[in-house]
Amino acid sequence: MTSRQPAPRTQVRRLPGKQVDDRAALDALLANALIAHAAVVDGGQPYVLPVAVAPDGDRVLSHGSTASRLFRALADGAPTCLTVTVVDGLVLARSQFESSMHYRSAVLLGRCSVLTGDDKMRALRVLTEHLMPGRATDARPPSNRELAATTVLALPLDEWSLKVSDAPPEDDPTDLDRPVWAGTVALHHVWGSATPAPDLVGNHPVPAYVGAWPQGRT
Amino acid sequence: MTSRQPAPRTQVRRLPGKQVDDRAALDALLANALIAHAAVVDGGQPYVLPVAVAPDGDRVLSHGSTASRLFRALADGAPTCLTVTVVDGLVLARSQFESSMHYRSAVLLGRCSVLTGDDKMRALRVLTEHLMPGRATDARPPSNRELAATTVLALPLDEWSLKVSDAPPEDDPTDLDRPVWAGTVALHHVWGSATPAPDLVGNHPVPAYVGAWPQGRT
Repeated sequence: MTSRQPAPRTQVRRLPGKQVDDRAALDALLANALIAHAAVVDGGQPYVLPVAVAPDGDRVLSHGSTASRLFRALADGAPTCLTVTVVDGLVLARSQFESSMHYRSAVLLGRCSVLTGDDKMRALRVLTEHLMPGRATDARPPSNRELAATTVLALPLDEWSLKVSDAPPEDDPTDLDRPVWAGTVALHHVWGSATPAPDLVGNHPVPAYVGAWPQGRT
Repeated sequence: MTSRQPAPRTQVRRLPGKQVDDRAALDALLANALIAHAAVVDGGQPYVLPVAVAPDGDRVLSHGSTASRLFRALADGAPTCLTVTVVDGLVLARSQFESSMHYRSAVLLGRCSVLTGDDKMRALRVLTEHLMPGRATDARPPSNRELAATTVLALPLDEWSLKVSDAPPEDDPTDLDRPVWAGTVALHHVWGSATPAPDLVGNHPVPAYVGAWPQGRT
């Protein structure tokens, strides 16, 4: 487990007791994440859009169309914020004020770099294997034309903060004898059924790797 | 069902075929949403943080601490973007390029207003009932001190766009005879077990309303 001093921009101000400086906890969250919410600013107006992400050592990868305004801005080096949040449940306190959620949320700040050549090809494979473990072998790799239409970006894990809420309700002592249940209710993210494409040719079964996907992805 | 012309800032540019102008589809997504990702800009740097949200007619409510930098900026009328995304599954195409996700994502632009007085009290109850249906009756309403520590905001549903991806894989015709399964795998968001607070006093059962919560919240 590694940890680091938070930079001023990523110091958690609200409920700092929930701040986690443990890099292993960040890695565990990113290992679950299918998407992040990425922001860019245009004329003072922020825009937030979901992007598929994959951790890759000390960076986070994402990819999108070269025609996307978001990816054009990010490729141009616009300052961005990538936020990954998983809601793990609800916290039912005796008071509405203390009621809250169980969640893990990582905020990553910085500027993306554009990947090219072998690094780009490898990153696309990492993205596929992260999002759909096992699929990179089965699904056709990108053609040159498809590569040219795809921007692949890396955001370094330099400036980040992680907030984790996983405690029981923390009610005011004067509320403890209220005649009501209090506790937490878990929210699970689980794979459901696999539906074959209507144009599926041949008698191919659902691949075994799909059945082996870890739960808790979101 | 109502629909509206997208404003220029909320015109979907990428994959515009996935744009949905149907207000009922937006309402259905917001009805599922526990959180949105909200952005503010500080010195050109965007910051994106998760916030609990609740739809309330033609506006979206959120609440946070008066000490929160995000809520102070939003209360001051900073331009914001609230994005609500639900990942509904993965799309396994024959090519990595066409592989993608099933998702619904709404982007709301505007400036928040600060709620006060009866509107604030009512909004907090709407938030509680949206996030934890049935709980507003059981959990103690906020005291004056708690109210003073809470900022409640409303963002009007004036400028929004909604993108929905729910189709089968759309492979290139030349890929259709590849000897591999293609299709979609659903991702479900389901309630798990209820865990009593360690300091629970008395023999209170898990409330019936918890067992009746709709699935698919995220």
